[in-house]
Amino acid sequence: MTQKVDILLRGGTVVTMNGKYEVFEDGAVAILGDSIVAVGPTGEMDQAYSAAEVVDCADTVVMPGFVNAHTHIPMTLMRGLNDDLRLDVWLGYLMPVERQFVTPEFVKLGARVACAEMIRSGITSFADMFYYEEAIAEQVAEIGMRALLGQTILVFPAPDAETFEDALILCRRFIEHWNGHALIQPAVAPHAWYTATPELLLACADLARAFDVPLHTHVSETKLEADNSVNQNHMSVVPWLEQHGILDTKLLAAHCVHIDEEEMFSLRRVGAGVAHCPSSNLKLASGIAPVTQMLKVGLNVGVGTDGPASNNDLDMVEEMRLASFIAKVSTSNPTALPARQAVELATISGARAIHMGDVTGSLEPGKRADIAVLDMTGIHNQPHFHNHPDAVYSRIVYSTKSSDVAHVICNGRWLMRDRALLTVDEASARRDAIEVAKAIDEFVIRRESSPYNKLVLLSGVQRQESFEVQVKVPMSDDTALRMLLDNDAISVSRFAHYRQYDHYFLFDEGDPDAARLRHREDEFINEAGEVTQVRVRLTLIGEGNREEFPNAVMLSRSRWLAAADRSLRFYQEYFAPARELSFQKDRQRWHVLYKATDFAINFDRVLEPDLPGYFMEIKARTWSRSDAERKAGLIAELLNICGLELDSAERREYTEIAISTNMEREAA
Amino acid sequence: MTQKVDILLRGGTVVTMNGKYEVFEDGAVAILGDSIVAVGPTGEMDQAYSAAEVVDCADTVVMPGFVNAHTHIPMTLMRGLNDDLRLDVWLGYLMPVERQFVTPEFVKLGARVACAEMIRSGITSFADMFYYEEAIAEQVAEIGMRALLGQTILVFPAPDAETFEDALILCRRFIEHWNGHALIQPAVAPHAWYTATPELLLACADLARAFDVPLHTHVSETKLEADNSVNQNHMSVVPWLEQHGILDTKLLAAHCVHIDEEEMFSLRRVGAGVAHCPSSNLKLASGIAPVTQMLKVGLNVGVGTDGPASNNDLDMVEEMRLASFIAKVSTSNPTALPARQAVELATISGARAIHMGDVTGSLEPGKRADIAVLDMTGIHNQPHFHNHPDAVYSRIVYSTKSSDVAHVICNGRWLMRDRALLTVDEASARRDAIEVAKAIDEFVIRRESSPYNKLVLLSGVQRQESFEVQVKVPMSDDTALRMLLDNDAISVSRFAHYRQYDHYFLFDEGDPDAARLRHREDEFINEAGEVTQVRVRLTLIGEGNREEFPNAVMLSRSRWLAAADRSLRFYQEYFAPARELSFQKDRQRWHVLYKATDFAINFDRVLEPDLPGYFMEIKARTWSRSDAERKAGLIAELLNICGLELDSAERREYTEIAISTNMEREAA
Repeated sequence: MTQKVDILLRGGTVVTMNGKYEVFEDGAVAILGDSIVAVGPTGEMDQAYSAAEVVDCADTVVMPGFVNAHTHIPMTLMRGLNDDLRLDVWLGYLMPVERQFVTPEFVKLGARVACAEMIRSGITSFADMFYYEEAIAEQVAEIGMRALLGQTILVFPAPDAETFEDALILCRRFIEHWNGHALIQPAVAPHAWYTATPELLLACADLARAFDVPLHTHVSETKLEADNSVNQNHMSVVPWLEQHGILDTKLLAAHCVHIDEEEMFSLRRVGAGVAHCPSSNLKLASGIAPVTQMLKVGLNVGVGTDGPASNNDLDMVEEMRLASFIAKVSTSNPTALPARQAVELATISGARAIHMGDVTGSLEPGKRADIAVLDMTGIHNQPHFHNHPDAVYSRIVYSTKSSDVAHVICNGRWLMRDRALLTVDEASARRDAIEVAKAIDEFVIRRESSPYNKLVLLSGVQRQESFEVQVKVPMSDDTALRMLLDNDAISVSRFAHYRQYDHYFLFDEGDPDAARLRHREDEFINEAGEVTQVRVRLTLIGEGNREEFPNAVMLSRSRWLAAADRSLRFYQEYFAPARELSFQKDRQRWHVLYKATDFAINFDRVLEPDLPGYFMEIKARTWSRSDAERKAGLIAELLNICGLELDSAERREYTEIAISTNMEREAA
Repeated sequence: MTQKVDILLRGGTVVTMNGKYEVFEDGAVAILGDSIVAVGPTGEMDQAYSAAEVVDCADTVVMPGFVNAHTHIPMTLMRGLNDDLRLDVWLGYLMPVERQFVTPEFVKLGARVACAEMIRSGITSFADMFYYEEAIAEQVAEIGMRALLGQTILVFPAPDAETFEDALILCRRFIEHWNGHALIQPAVAPHAWYTATPELLLACADLARAFDVPLHTHVSETKLEADNSVNQNHMSVVPWLEQHGILDTKLLAAHCVHIDEEEMFSLRRVGAGVAHCPSSNLKLASGIAPVTQMLKVGLNVGVGTDGPASNNDLDMVEEMRLASFIAKVSTSNPTALPARQAVELATISGARAIHMGDVTGSLEPGKRADIAVLDMTGIHNQPHFHNHPDAVYSRIVYSTKSSDVAHVICNGRWLMRDRALLTVDEASARRDAIEVAKAIDEFVIRRESSPYNKLVLLSGVQRQESFEVQVKVPMSDDTALRMLLDNDAISVSRFAHYRQYDHYFLFDEGDPDAARLRHREDEFINEAGEVTQVRVRLTLIGEGNREEFPNAVMLSRSRWLAAADRSLRFYQEYFAPARELSFQKDRQRWHVLYKATDFAINFDRVLEPDLPGYFMEIKARTWSRSDAERKAGLIAELLNICGLELDSAERREYTEIAISTNMEREAA
């Protein structure tokens, strides 16, 4: 008596990736509903099962669908927009585009393009990190792929959340809505430690634990990041994450290019998964992750494509091969990461890394039917040998192409049959993507002629996002300043005295918040009044975002810093600004601590235009609205200490003061 | 009045790779006979030309066919036979297969498979190095690809030549036959300096210069090779080649992974081409060639797939992308080798590297029509941008796949149209390749149970090819030896005294030339008769090849050495030989110089089986038949000096003597 099943894939080389690495040279897989019922030799399977649908798999390899362990799928819509750039410059280009274009519709379209591409490459599961994951989840579930979807949380304003508190709320709602879905596993995705505050990391870890969902984050992608962690946090990235609760979650750590053995053991101890992203790490010159060592330590390592804006494709066959290639060359050992292990990373080990090892990644009875069928008749796969039990893995890794994937089944459902996609309208996705690309092209081409782009072309830039709460008060002498500094509640940690020669290049005079470029020469002055050091920098100050608080102003501006190694005259000609403005001041700056919070106090005398009296500024860096509100309150207290009123505050920036002063004088 | 042409490719994005990197977003190419007549905007081209065949190229990129700058095409038939192995072990596996299977029919079939694969990947020109290039040339010319074909020359016996003199004669005939052909450029291909003697290199350089044809050789592929050159030749590889005439030819240097800047300048000075082989160098863990530096020096660098037995495919799109990726990661600079330069390496720079820059590699009027048309509609190529003039190169390098190649034209002839091959019967090539693979599988599987394979599995091996001319003369005392050593024409350079404890493992007792395994313990003895050092080694002595000369015997045997770090008992059990044989002797060895030629003189007393008297052996290493004949003559002179007759020589090896002594004793 035969058992009835829905689908029988028969007559192929079945590569199970089960614990014994069983391969059936002439094998079959029986599927009932969403799951695999049995795997075995075709002869026995024909006897045991009668299927509604029998699929002849002669000359194919039947294997688990690939697991793409780290990606940002909507970035298909920014594929190839900016290549061959430094990571910081690349981000400098990309983030304004994201802010301008990323909407729920955008991410859905990007997801359609990405899913089409991933299915064609034999991928059935993936781990994503982006904005508007709610919309992505709807799209992916409809298409029928399995996914770990991480809602991004940042300290900076993001396309879907102005503050990180908003992002956390969004993430919680997303989890509540999707947790328990057959295909979609929601996750918390703090982007990285360096775009987070300690509070943000702790809050993310709490959220992930509260719902027992995975947490997906970037870890030690670049040498610079790893070095910065040591400099800023006095420890490596993984212990820093551990200290902030992140290792107490079901962690998926992307990249891990620059982690040491101790960090590997920490990750191993908590069962974390690592997503190794060969193409992205090579293309951005981030380095080669020590995967061989990770595997020795016993980590669950998966392979990821990363986002298609830094790869530029979603081809797991290529990534799998590269994982093997770069492990060999980086260890000078051609036996490192052999073909079978590369397939393992791209399937079952990847499934474990994204915390889905119990449902996918291998062809075993009881697991979901997530299957890729590879057509092995291509001339690039001819001939092949049987002299070694691992020969089939060699074929898959070293000579198969993603275009050889013929059929894909996910959760028991056909997603692709004979290279035809069944659940995505590829033609319309292509048409719509081309339309979006046109709009992005226009936006970017408009920016081409901008000072930003010119600065990038000139020398590359370093990006700095800066958010400040500040007040500025005009005064005739330093009485108020002295009262402040002499107060017992305030302790001074650092003092500097310098003269600042600023040249502002203005490109849109009418808008005080428009982007402007500043050429600044700092002359540092010692106690004897001598100049001890000179520093010259260019800073492109992006469009401002100002928010008035009851007793302070929060200003957020993107800043891009660049070394100014040419003459001022060169820059004047090169940037050809609509207007220039000179501004000189003598600045004394104290870094102080008040109620365990850092503030900077500037005491400035404006020399050009020569303005009477002084300005005192009180400033603090901030990360979120609630933090800004708290610090604005503290600033009010500080003003109170030195007997000043908020009403007397100057709400304009220095450039605005300079512009209006100039205008008044010209008018006079 | 319009000009009549044969083919007009119109409406595609035409990437010319000419000196100005011209790209026509909506462009056309006009072809007449074997050549390009004009390239330009579609509108203008429509006006100027009327074509017998007009091809709509909407949504495609029309570009120069790729140039595969280094490969061994018949190795398609050994694709995936041995992976994830050390280069020496891999060669140890591969070379016996080559000796067994490589015939003119084999290389023709391998060429058919390779050409099919290369055309599918958009390749129109390639540089090959293998045996029986005459047969390869016939096949490639018939298929219609352009190729630089290098006839391999080695000091070792090769499948098509017993000696290097034979190989040189073969090569000369090949050049005479094909030089001047429209598609085939014959070349001289000494495999590498370390498989050559100085005389061989000089002879190859002479031959290449005599016919003004290129010379194709491997240069500094591995660190070991580069180190060996310094140790053996007291200089790096390139100066060694320079000293032996190789740089006075139109040189194509494959790999160049471990060359320094001085070597780059030497290659640049003589206009040499470099073939960079990313996949092969990664997969065999050879290292990453300093391509960025080579380009700065101004070298013509091309990209090659290397042979499909070490890659395992012939996919130039993959190689081009890898060239860019590994240049970035190895220099920690993501702006290194940007997309446009990667395309350049794979086309015009590659054409220059293989000394065909005047006829192919770019789309320019007057050049041959060697063209690949890429279908850009795949979802993995959606969307794309126009914000940067180099965006089209980004698409080609970072997201296009070789399976996107739709049409290929070479020398004005259609080789592929809408992905259908027109000049290779792919189905029959596939069928025949599968048949050959079956035979190789059988051969290799039979060898699986062989001592060779077991030795490899155990510890890896080091291969040593050894050719010796020798005589062995039995004698009752050392009178003759003394006469020899005292003669003024002979000077002694070194002396050693040791006792050798050999255990031979015999696997086929009936055949004296069958492979055998030797476990040898050498006890070095000082003047006081004390043992100063012990060395234990395993040597697998391959099947012998003996040739009798009038007055000596030339023996050639492959030898694989391995450290013997386990007990003799272990090896006895592990190898389970058909028979074992113990053999002990006391050996005194003098290295002497006679008529500027090195000889070794052994004076042996056989202790087990205990044989009466002594044996004197006179041996010399040799590389070719004429050299062997000369040295055999010198050996006759040496015998004459000590009053010995050739008639008295013992023509058996010690193992044979031991076997027959044992058999006699058993019989008695």
